[in-house]
Amino acid sequence: MDFINTFGVTGMTCGHCVRSVKGELGKIDGVTDVTVDLENGIVNVTSSNELDSDAIEAAIDEAGYEYVA
Amino acid sequence: MDFINTFGVTGMTCGHCVRSVKGELGKIDGVTDVTVDLENGIVNVTSSNELDSDAIEAAIDEAGYEYVA
Repeated sequence: MDFINTFGVTGMTCGHCVRSVKGELGKIDGVTDVTVDLENGIVNVTSSNELDSDAIEAAIDEAGYEYVA
Repeated sequence: MDFINTFGVTGMTCGHCVRSVKGELGKIDGVTDVTVDLENGIVNVTSSNELDSDAIEAAIDEAGYEYVA
């Protein structure tokens, strides 16, 4: 079974930003896919186990952007 | 003696874009410094020899942005 987390991320402006966010989220254990809707600032993370929201927020912060619940 | 080239670059939106442009321009032989004014899309390239404008345009293109004379 897949778990899907959808949330907002503010501050992304270009493909490099998308790559940074994807890269950091992809490091979280269990994450199998990350999609980013740059125009609307919406991120979808698919994982094989339930994710800790703190880990997601930390990843977004590490990439240099802002998590919006 | 230093040579300074000033020109516009469109399409840069964030610090990653600036880094890409700086990285590509920095590869040109003789380039000693690159500064980018992101807000105004103005780039200054300092070099120890006169630069070929084709090389500059090619570097901007390689970074994925548009050179404006």
